[in-house]
Amino acid sequence: MSSNLGFIPFQYQGLHFHKPLQLHKFPRIHSAIDRHKRHKRRNRVGLGRRKFLIKSMKAVIQRVASASVEVEGRTVSAIGPGLLVLVGLHESDLESDAEYICRKVLNMRLYPNEKSGKTWDQNVMQRNYEVLLVSQFTLYGVLKGNKPDFHVAMPPEKAKLFYASLVEKFRKAYNMDAVKDGVFGAMMKVNLVNDGPVTMQLDSAQSSR
Amino acid sequence: MSSNLGFIPFQYQGLHFHKPLQLHKFPRIHSAIDRHKRHKRRNRVGLGRRKFLIKSMKAVIQRVASASVEVEGRTVSAIGPGLLVLVGLHESDLESDAEYICRKVLNMRLYPNEKSGKTWDQNVMQRNYEVLLVSQFTLYGVLKGNKPDFHVAMPPEKAKLFYASLVEKFRKAYNMDAVKDGVFGAMMKVNLVNDGPVTMQLDSAQSSR
Repeated sequence: MSSNLGFIPFQYQGLHFHKPLQLHKFPRIHSAIDRHKRHKRRNRVGLGRRKFLIKSMKAVIQRVASASVEVEGRTVSAIGPGLLVLVGLHESDLESDAEYICRKVLNMRLYPNEKSGKTWDQNVMQRNYEVLLVSQFTLYGVLKGNKPDFHVAMPPEKAKLFYASLVEKFRKAYNMDAVKDGVFGAMMKVNLVNDGPVTMQLDSAQSSR
Repeated sequence: MSSNLGFIPFQYQGLHFHKPLQLHKFPRIHSAIDRHKRHKRRNRVGLGRRKFLIKSMKAVIQRVASASVEVEGRTVSAIGPGLLVLVGLHESDLESDAEYICRKVLNMRLYPNEKSGKTWDQNVMQRNYEVLLVSQFTLYGVLKGNKPDFHVAMPPEKAKLFYASLVEKFRKAYNMDAVKDGVFGAMMKVNLVNDGPVTMQLDSAQSSR
């Protein structure tokens, strides 16, 4: 691995290293690796910028009065008022993309504050509302002519694990019972009542701003 | 207006003009104007590329088993199987953006072909399914911290007309009865059953590829 890390100084906080770095002890170096990987990904974008824009984790967030997921006629998951979040994973997604999406979804202010009269004031947690996460690889559909092509979506085996860790992240950041999910990879019917309607798109590539 | 049109040759198809051009007679010049405006918009993007990406008309398309729109407890519009299309208008949107979104939504292949067994084969028109259009300015929400900011969305007065012309365009391209819409600017509850789920995002800025 160290051959990839030429950009990391062998001197770190004034210490010299004569044996391989124990990277897990240095969170700042971890984020440097993330930045480096992201930079490489950006470069890839740069080369073909006019042809197509490679992006990171995508989410479509709908503010719902209620939502549920049905698999083969059986309701497997249901929430009352809250957010339905469709999540599309890109093949190059990293831990930091998941963190960004989790943080933003839970904190974005999509609810009014009845007391102050402000329209966009409270987040889903302040309302004690629920979150339903549904994986949605079609968000990476790129139209070739009129045919959707999904080759930049994260492959299913990897995506299944990554998606599970994303759900965990949401549960840890909010609470266990308030965050529900669908069934990864299953054919689902997702029932929802979009309240407003209010629909937002998030893209973890925005996180570098 | 002519001061903006320095790039248009005064000689057009071999003719010389000594009086102001009657531009509506020249569809090719119209598209040149569109290109010019788009170019200026692109430039604006270029300047602030790292800060934020200005885009054109956006649509979130959900493949539905059924969908309906409710205003103040009353159902004002309903479709069976088909597409629910949430449309966000950008302040700089042009006729050509509307044309792109209309063409792509109606032609994108989101349905399987039972005969050939192909998964992504038929478009909504080939299935004789319906389309429900709902305007959704929140698609232009840009997060400032955690607060959505909608300043790049088309202002309501202009958007109302533009949106109405978009609905017309869909009806003309498909058919009168198969294309329904919500109530512009009203508080709505949009009920839908996302079938798959299948959700795609379109952006008319892709049209230049």
